[in-house]
Amino acid sequence: VSETLVYLNGRMLPASEAHLPIYDLGIVQGATVTEMTRTFRHRLWRLDEHLQRLGRSLRYTRMNLGLSWEELVALSEQLVAHNAQHMAAHEELGLVHFVTAGEHAIYANLSERPPRSSCTVCAHTFRLPFERWARHMQEGVHVVTPSIRQVPPQCLDPKIKYRSRLHYYLAEQEARLVDPEAVALLLDVAGNVTETNAANLLLLEAGTVVSPPAVYTLPGISRAMVIELCGQLGMPFRERDLQTYHVMNADEAFLASTPYCLMPVTKINGASIGTGRPGPVFSRLLSAWSQVVGVDIGGQIIEGGRNSG
Amino acid sequence: VSETLVYLNGRMLPASEAHLPIYDLGIVQGATVTEMTRTFRHRLWRLDEHLQRLGRSLRYTRMNLGLSWEELVALSEQLVAHNAQHMAAHEELGLVHFVTAGEHAIYANLSERPPRSSCTVCAHTFRLPFERWARHMQEGVHVVTPSIRQVPPQCLDPKIKYRSRLHYYLAEQEARLVDPEAVALLLDVAGNVTETNAANLLLLEAGTVVSPPAVYTLPGISRAMVIELCGQLGMPFRERDLQTYHVMNADEAFLASTPYCLMPVTKINGASIGTGRPGPVFSRLLSAWSQVVGVDIGGQIIEGGRNSG
Amino acid sequence: VSETLVYLNGRMLPASEAHLPIYDLGIVQGATVTEMTRTFRHRLWRLDEHLQRLGRSLRYTRMNLGLSWEELVALSEQLVAHNAQHMAAHEELGLVHFVTAGEHAIYANLSERPPRSSCTVCAHTFRLPFERWARHMQEGVHVVTPSIRQVPPQCLDPKIKYRSRLHYYLAEQEARLVDPEAVALLLDVAGNVTETNAANLLLLEAGTVVSPPAVYTLPGISRAMVIELCGQLGMPFRERDLQTYHVMNADEAFLASTPYCLMPVTKINGASIGTGRPGPVFSRLLSAWSQVVGVDIGGQIIEGGRNSG
Amino acid sequence: VSETLVYLNGRMLPASEAHLPIYDLGIVQGATVTEMTRTFRHRLWRLDEHLQRLGRSLRYTRMNLGLSWEELVALSEQLVAHNAQHMAAHEELGLVHFVTAGEHAIYANLSERPPRSSCTVCAHTFRLPFERWARHMQEGVHVVTPSIRQVPPQCLDPKIKYRSRLHYYLAEQEARLVDPEAVALLLDVAGNVTETNAANLLLLEAGTVVSPPAVYTLPGISRAMVIELCGQLGMPFRERDLQTYHVMNADEAFLASTPYCLMPVTKINGASIGTGRPGPVFSRLLSAWSQVVGVDIGGQIIEGGRNSG
Amino acid sequence: VSETLVYLNGRMLPASEAHLPIYDLGIVQGATVTEMTRTFRHRLWRLDEHLQRLGRSLRYTRMNLGLSWEELVALSEQLVAHNAQHMAAHEELGLVHFVTAGEHAIYANLSERPPRSSCTVCAHTFRLPFERWARHMQEGVHVVTPSIRQVPPQCLDPKIKYRSRLHYYLAEQEARLVDPEAVALLLDVAGNVTETNAANLLLLEAGTVVSPPAVYTLPGISRAMVIELCGQLGMPFRERDLQTYHVMNADEAFLASTPYCLMPVTKINGASIGTGRPGPVFSRLLSAWSQVVGVDIGGQIIEGGRNSG
Amino acid sequence: VSETLVYLNGRMLPASEAHLPIYDLGIVQGATVTEMTRTFRHRLWRLDEHLQRLGRSLRYTRMNLGLSWEELVALSEQLVAHNAQHMAAHEELGLVHFVTAGEHAIYANLSERPPRSSCTVCAHTFRLPFERWARHMQEGVHVVTPSIRQVPPQCLDPKIKYRSRLHYYLAEQEARLVDPEAVALLLDVAGNVTETNAANLLLLEAGTVVSPPAVYTLPGISRAMVIELCGQLGMPFRERDLQTYHVMNADEAFLASTPYCLMPVTKINGASIGTGRPGPVFSRLLSAWSQVVGVDIGGQIIEGGRNSG
Repeated sequence: VSETLVYLNGRMLPASEAHLPIYDLGIVQGATVTEMTRTFRHRLWRLDEHLQRLGRSLRYTRMNLGLSWEELVALSEQLVAHNAQHMAAHEELGLVHFVTAGEHAIYANLSERPPRSSCTVCAHTFRLPFERWARHMQEGVHVVTPSIRQVPPQCLDPKIKYRSRLHYYLAEQEARLVDPEAVALLLDVAGNVTETNAANLLLLEAGTVVSPPAVYTLPGISRAMVIELCGQLGMPFRERDLQTYHVMNADEAFLASTPYCLMPVTKINGASIGTGRPGPVFSRLLSAWSQVVGVDIGGQIIEGGRNSG
Repeated sequence: VSETLVYLNGRMLPASEAHLPIYDLGIVQGATVTEMTRTFRHRLWRLDEHLQRLGRSLRYTRMNLGLSWEELVALSEQLVAHNAQHMAAHEELGLVHFVTAGEHAIYANLSERPPRSSCTVCAHTFRLPFERWARHMQEGVHVVTPSIRQVPPQCLDPKIKYRSRLHYYLAEQEARLVDPEAVALLLDVAGNVTETNAANLLLLEAGTVVSPPAVYTLPGISRAMVIELCGQLGMPFRERDLQTYHVMNADEAFLASTPYCLMPVTKINGASIGTGRPGPVFSRLLSAWSQVVGVDIGGQIIEGGRNSG
Repeated sequence: VSETLVYLNGRMLPASEAHLPIYDLGIVQGATVTEMTRTFRHRLWRLDEHLQRLGRSLRYTRMNLGLSWEELVALSEQLVAHNAQHMAAHEELGLVHFVTAGEHAIYANLSERPPRSSCTVCAHTFRLPFERWARHMQEGVHVVTPSIRQVPPQCLDPKIKYRSRLHYYLAEQEARLVDPEAVALLLDVAGNVTETNAANLLLLEAGTVVSPPAVYTLPGISRAMVIELCGQLGMPFRERDLQTYHVMNADEAFLASTPYCLMPVTKINGASIGTGRPGPVFSRLLSAWSQVVGVDIGGQIIEGGRNSG
Repeated sequence: VSETLVYLNGRMLPASEAHLPIYDLGIVQGATVTEMTRTFRHRLWRLDEHLQRLGRSLRYTRMNLGLSWEELVALSEQLVAHNAQHMAAHEELGLVHFVTAGEHAIYANLSERPPRSSCTVCAHTFRLPFERWARHMQEGVHVVTPSIRQVPPQCLDPKIKYRSRLHYYLAEQEARLVDPEAVALLLDVAGNVTETNAANLLLLEAGTVVSPPAVYTLPGISRAMVIELCGQLGMPFRERDLQTYHVMNADEAFLASTPYCLMPVTKINGASIGTGRPGPVFSRLLSAWSQVVGVDIGGQIIEGGRNSG
Repeated sequence: VSETLVYLNGRMLPASEAHLPIYDLGIVQGATVTEMTRTFRHRLWRLDEHLQRLGRSLRYTRMNLGLSWEELVALSEQLVAHNAQHMAAHEELGLVHFVTAGEHAIYANLSERPPRSSCTVCAHTFRLPFERWARHMQEGVHVVTPSIRQVPPQCLDPKIKYRSRLHYYLAEQEARLVDPEAVALLLDVAGNVTETNAANLLLLEAGTVVSPPAVYTLPGISRAMVIELCGQLGMPFRERDLQTYHVMNADEAFLASTPYCLMPVTKINGASIGTGRPGPVFSRLLSAWSQVVGVDIGGQIIEGGRNSG
Repeated sequence: VSETLVYLNGRMLPASEAHLPIYDLGIVQGATVTEMTRTFRHRLWRLDEHLQRLGRSLRYTRMNLGLSWEELVALSEQLVAHNAQHMAAHEELGLVHFVTAGEHAIYANLSERPPRSSCTVCAHTFRLPFERWARHMQEGVHVVTPSIRQVPPQCLDPKIKYRSRLHYYLAEQEARLVDPEAVALLLDVAGNVTETNAANLLLLEAGTVVSPPAVYTLPGISRAMVIELCGQLGMPFRERDLQTYHVMNADEAFLASTPYCLMPVTKINGASIGTGRPGPVFSRLLSAWSQVVGVDIGGQIIEGGRNSG
């Protein structure tokens, strides 16, 4: 069996050789932007939108990829094609792109070769860990609002998908004090709900789907898909400032994120949301989504849990 | 000649082999704390204080080093001893420690081996690049206040020396629009002066040395040394909120940082500070410092510039 | 046995008759200021300081007590003398004063009598519940920083001891999600540590006792006593902004509050502070305090726990 | 004549016996949520919406009413039926519900009986004091912006109708320095207009009715009624941040609140709004509202003033 | 040739005699509100809207113009008629109104005559300096975000066109450090984009024209015209918080301001916006505007540059 | 009698000819910095300190005076010498310096002559209006905290004495709604007390003189004199954040400002401070100050009131 490949700085490498020198600016300064795309039936879904968002992140951070759009698409598809070839049909891949600001010129003098002046560009895949999400997909996630707050846009803009996220790491640790399986839901410095480490939040309020303004969170592509589906299903959608009050009093809540698409949230800070069970609008949205992609998204995940159990 | 060594997760490796797998949380999430110590005459200076600060960073981030204090000191000294052996007498080393939160369990499945559950611990050295600082040491640095602001302590505490610093990268780019050699001096969200990417700021105002409160910046060990020297030289020192106004109207300004100790700042946002030249208090402090460490700090740097020119 | 008495609007009543009509502004609007004093050996301690602080609260809220200083002192002492007469020697009393803005004129029309236009003034006592504090006194308290934040001074000044404290109630509930015995330590809107529901926080850092500025918390009389004791014991004391970082990295931490005087804090957000056990400076301060008041404060509490067990 | 009744903790009591022990948490901590409903022709209006909002307040504060929806509705209607029976036809009732967090366990030991562990639940009525509003209904209210600011949602959410409102008491006192009849209009910490002590603000701007976002004020049921009426009358309605500038330059302004429905505002900080007289859109809205409820709302109030004069 | 006239406090004066005594409050305190209107073919355009906005500024600042609407219109038109009479056909006028709070009573005692107690009212014209804008109209403006921030509405409301604008002067100086031709684009204290010294910003994002909420900037009359034109051209328009990210990633950007109507923005902080050239939507809007006013707006400006070159 | 002279742009003019063209940037943009010095016995007092502060304001705003220190001192003294020559012995002068950013190049084309590219520099005197202060000196000032807030330092630094002060004008108007003689005491955006339009605030608290940090207000030269006198009189002085609470509960309060030196404050927001009368520490400080300058400062003012009555 050929090993999983990783794209790194112009080369396709076996995964076991994919590493960065310790003086890469991604390690030294967290100067990294990233994207994550997933497959359905082993084909990348909405790669264009993900790469466009990557483009906006790069423009904002003034990093230069050094690759054309076509090259980027091609290597992405090539990587997935190769890495998916020995996967089971019920498995799927996540594709990660990341770009760092290059190498730290001063630290690099510990190396024999001169530091690369251009950006570090990497793309790699991973098997979507359905088994980790199976229970949450059925019973819902518990979100907890830690005292650590989201970094304000004037310091680091949440609209770029960046990796300087130690505050997320700290927030998770605080959330897990309440429940080892809890997910941190970060408030901003004014106390508004923003997002979790890896997902956008949406609520159902009296038949309307609401979500915090995309201006203050990552403008999620899965969240955009939910908005699209709302349109198709005739459900109103609205962006609005949300506070803990709204989550506690919502009819339903869910997280949208690329790898699992949509996940119910049934508890916040120990209190049940709605009935405390995944709700009918969640099911309706997930089912509509499944139809679009031709895969039973929830079933695949729950099944994944069963297989690994 | 034996190659430079790097300490990584319990092993001493040749520098060319010191790299992190791309799924290390230092790369994936910027979940990294760090320290930097330097040598004088090839001996580490105030290693204890640096390692204590590292200890506080680890405690705050709940990372576990997995090494005793003695082991940490021993490997640090061993690394320097080895890497300094072929250096010229007028050269010095910087010693970097960094600790990441370990490996990203889900991404790690691209690898053949199971993810390490413990922290990634690394120590490496680099030659202090005196030639880069020589002109600044003689003529002073130009600091520029970018519109990007320092991350507030309630999001990410500046008292831990962390590496989630994409905002510093962005700030530097903004500062360089004004002057390619400028250094970014970050304001906090209230407009108070904090620190540069890599140094604490101190001002001279009517005979008193002042500096922003250590509560809102990295509590610098070089800054602490300046305070110590002020005591010895009978100069009053005071912590106080500072704004751009204070820097523009200071008699002198300087940066304190481990690798170069003390550097004059002679310009802010294009305007001269004081006489526009390094001042007598700067010289007095640097000279007192040089006496303590038995090395002509400024001379070594300026000489370094000459050698490399 | 004569029943416990309560002072209410000019009369001494049996406790069972001490109640407020439901249209009292203390109930309708939380428009209430308060004080709490305790006894040592059944004698009120520092009553003057408590009544002076009550005077400042009343002045700020423009409420008029309608009693002279002498009357207030006299009724306080009379109440304690009466209510302590049948107490055991090892028991002590807390004395609560509270003053509300009077009665809500419109709601009051549900009553037969016209609404009282003057303030409601009440004083009552309660037995200090040593048994509740005994374990904490020996093992230390666990403080947790909830996401609910302290009300800013420009809305409601923390220097008045007021009872509009629903946010404290909410904060406690959040803290107890982490540990049912945890105490909420509120951060202010900038993320600085303020106080708990009922106590000031003090830390020991490298031999110095530090505490958040009295400007942003209740200027505690027990905290003032700690400062006094620091002076006597030759320990430096400093007011300064504190963040979670400081608590996590302190050598010791303790709470100062009238009913129990001083209590060790040994954990914050699940992490041990210092050794994780009450420290020597805590003991030294409590012992000095005990000498001043002629009562073994800690012993009395721990004994109280034993008696009730 | 039978006395007015009050519901308290499961019993119907004569009003003169409706009181809370001084250790109730509503008194000790302001830990109270509340609602107010009114009658038209002695029938409760939109009781459902008020009780639903009460439900959201209870959910947020994690208080448990201990009553079913049906029981709550039944006791509310029973109370009004009883208390309205001897009222004149032109009079109306306000119905207040309030729930406190129960009793303070430690203070309660001054009492003979053990503290109740459940919430305190009370419902009472009061005669709507039309005579107090008659002049304002005809000439308009004077609103004044005090320096005391609204408590931010991250401390205490304005969407719950709570009673920890000492800041409102302070704000009123400041407003009355300008005009003894003035009503305080609170700004938030960013200077945006929020609400008065007891009412939502709405403005008329070039034919559009605008009001501060419901996210930052109590989501008023009377305000919702105005929005409904705007829809019926073909007048656009918009939520938007408002500042003093908007109030000073509005064509009309009015307050919406349960007891008087709608009241004109004709002055802010001493300056006339619009013509300085109640405007035509106010009249149109109040008249449409009157039609819905079958009562001449304004006339009833003005008449009430005449009767009592 | 008769000299240019200026209206000042009830008189028409030759421009060379139009000056204010040094104790005018416009000079002493910056207590001045203002407006600017321009001509097309020597006729004032939308004078009504400008004077209405002036009216709102006066109402907010409680200044009394002492002139009727008709008098104000008449003197404005008379001034333009007189001052335009000797202008070339391709030239146009700007008309400035400004009103100060009158004279400083104490300083005025340096004068022989008693201080005027009423407001200072002035109207004057100036030739629109097309030659200054010609290059920007063709190549676009470079905007730079300085560290100086916009004054918050709770201090000084941006919706009044006032002249206390030293912060704009400071912001411009900072922007010019990056590029001597750059224009300062001020961020507010939360980091949102507001406006430049003299213009509103609009962006094109995926076919929608967006602009910061009028609540936090001067509600520009040229901006309103763009919104009107968007309606006519079937282009969606939306108000929304904008950050630097949005400007950097916009398809097009432009400034709207009375004297030049619309100007392309092609660079922010040194980075190109869109293609780095004025875009098609800009051209379409400017051309639609030109049709409305019967003047080739862009051509006139570019021609103006050629003439003066 | 020769007329009062004014220095303007290099010339000494009769006061009646001292005026600025309407296109001066001091009028157009409020781009003006200023100073005020006073005489004792017709001699300027601490002119040096005032001119140094002017120098710092100019440096911050990057304005160039175009005069040497000696020239500036000379013209100041010459102006006072001339203007004081016909004054009564009991009268004194205020000397105002102001510098604007020059002329607005585009507006200036309404003038015949080319715009001056350099700064506008003016110095003028005025008779100190003792009669205005006499009653306040005897009975104390009433300060009122308006809802308008001080401009934050990150927008416009209060340490420069600038004239873009429309917010002060607005604040005064709000304060006068409470009392036509009240003086506005501005709070900053966090609710801390800053300064009045023209004076620093100082409080007496338990024997210590306290004042808001000079970092957030104009660093007053009269305030500095109070600190000096405190030193001489053995009274402790401390800078600290102050809130309304502190003013309401102070033992004494006073304003320090150049023209009247020191003035008692006896009321805030309608409530008496201390005894409601000027206090003994105020008297002691004023008397010490009088000794230093050889003039009975308070007597002169009170006498001035009597003369003009």
